Amino acid sequence: MRVGLDVGGTKTDAVVVDDAGDIAGRVRLTTGWGGEQIVRTVVAAVHAVATDAGADLSQIDSVGIGIPGQVDAETGRVAHAVNLGVDDLDLAAEVAPMLGVAVRVENDVKAAALGAYALRGHALGLGLRHGSMAYLNLGTGVAAGIVIDGELSRGARGTAGEVGHISIDPAGPLCRCGQHGCVEALAGGGAVAQRWGRPGRFPVLDVFDAADAGDETARELRAGIARGVASAVRILILTADVDVVVLGGGVTALGDRLMADVSAELAASAAASPFMRSLRLEERVELLPAGSPAAALGAALIGATNDPHTEEALTHG
Amino acid sequence: MRVGLDVGGTKTDAVVVDDAGDIAGRVRLTTGWGGEQIVRTVVAAVHAVATDAGADLSQIDSVGIGIPGQVDAETGRVAHAVNLGVDDLDLAAEVAPMLGVAVRVENDVKAAALGAYALRGHALGLGLRHGSMAYLNLGTGVAAGIVIDGELSRGARGTAGEVGHISIDPAGPLCRCGQHGCVEALAGGGAVAQRWGRPGRFPVLDVFDAADAGDETARELRAGIARGVASAVRILILTADVDVVVLGGGVTALGDRLMADVSAELAASAAASPFMRSLRLEERVELLPAGSPAAALGAALIGATNDPHTEEALTHG
Repeated sequence: MRVGLDVGGTKTDAVVVDDAGDIAGRVRLTTGWGGEQIVRTVVAAVHAVATDAGADLSQIDSVGIGIPGQVDAETGRVAHAVNLGVDDLDLAAEVAPMLGVAVRVENDVKAAALGAYALRGHALGLGLRHGSMAYLNLGTGVAAGIVIDGELSRGARGTAGEVGHISIDPAGPLCRCGQHGCVEALAGGGAVAQRWGRPGRFPVLDVFDAADAGDETARELRAGIARGVASAVRILILTADVDVVVLGGGVTALGDRLMADVSAELAASAAASPFMRSLRLEERVELLPAGSPAAALGAALIGATNDPHTEEALTHG
Repeated sequence: MRVGLDVGGTKTDAVVVDDAGDIAGRVRLTTGWGGEQIVRTVVAAVHAVATDAGADLSQIDSVGIGIPGQVDAETGRVAHAVNLGVDDLDLAAEVAPMLGVAVRVENDVKAAALGAYALRGHALGLGLRHGSMAYLNLGTGVAAGIVIDGELSRGARGTAGEVGHISIDPAGPLCRCGQHGCVEALAGGGAVAQRWGRPGRFPVLDVFDAADAGDETARELRAGIARGVASAVRILILTADVDVVVLGGGVTALGDRLMADVSAELAASAAASPFMRSLRLEERVELLPAGSPAAALGAALIGATNDPHTEEALTHG
């Protein structure tokens, strides 16, 4: 059995995947703040989810952790996870001895991409390697993970899928990265909340509601979200040419309201351009189902497959 | 020995590659207009280049053809090659019986990408599989080919690398594709010539000269070229995360003048954004040497490797 963890800014989602590939246990814990508390959260989550699956820690073959920030997948080191209060944390090295299990760490969006790919393949009965997919994460920030034939596309220097910081409008709003009109400056939950500037627990939802009620600022922000997401979809398909783009992350809690806006934006460019129309983009965008364990599941897959020794053990053992 | 052809709008470049991988012959012919004349040009070019290499047609193991337009690499069929007067041409099926050799056809930019990758690997002593590269072709249009570990990235539906039709400015000029502010509308030789609108054999060169002389229209057009090329580089690196982007195509005849503009544009975004600075984009852009046989060489490689039977024959024969 393998454990997968998705360490988020507020909650840590943990699953146990059994040898048949099914989810045998799932728990959610509140994520601690700062390196020391993150380590505690991870250890507690592994124990808790093993118990939930009715398993003993000795029955766990591997632990995979998806976590925001810059992750060195080779060493399991995490840097610049600002939403977690982590500047630099040797996560795998700290956690593995406490658990007595091999631990792999990956960027959370990349892990979610792998999990979303596996879930989609399973749901459609497509098997483990069924073409290509980009998982576009719409959270505080915007980034994508690309999976081709079941393998994560990591790129040359770890920036594959960083479409959030491509500028699509030189006259657009200033992005936290320093450029103007980045996809993230238009469609990132953090950027939208900041420009909206009013209190509220779910600023992007408030923006959608206020836009429906006729608020001009909200309408502009809402149009920008659709524009940013549609541009990211076009960029992913015209550059990496993936079969399908799956949208996930906090902003997708808006569900059909978001999808309707994005579809309208894609339909507008298809109406203007025979070339864009030939790409059939509207048919190639999907929404990750709400509450999907994609990120934790993907982390479990990374824990199991990323280590050649583990892979061999799984294949022959 | 293998023959590779690059069928261009005015000239067809042909090379013979010997069994050691070296270029043993090279000729250039004027390309005929329309399907029938294209077939004649191809057959004549194969004969001429074989003679140039001191070889008999019976010594040629394969022929690869790079050609503009929409190419079905499986069948060797070409569609919408407007600059060649070809609407639909079953090129491989027409030419193969006349030559008595296996013929493979590929889009010219994809072929050039593979050739540029091989040439770069050879020049740097890196071997056949040395990481990832995008070849960004700046000709009448703008498109890229992506090569990862020596393999062409074809994508799910044949649009991998079509960065020319990504909009980077909603207020930008109308593109021939129907969208506004596409990379190609800013940096494509055809779009620039059209907006420049004055007679001349090399409109983009005229634009650079006129900009140096202070012409305001020319300065704007020239700034747009740099902006379009720099954006394409950012898109390729932030999406596919290739090691390096190699610029080729007619517009690169401008050489250092073009590179200086593009570098300045990349330096400006690096100055504004620590994230962009961390990507070191300026160090990751190169110019294909003038007169390089990249496209014809790439076609020869495609002729040899694209067919599993041929590959087996090459490996075991």
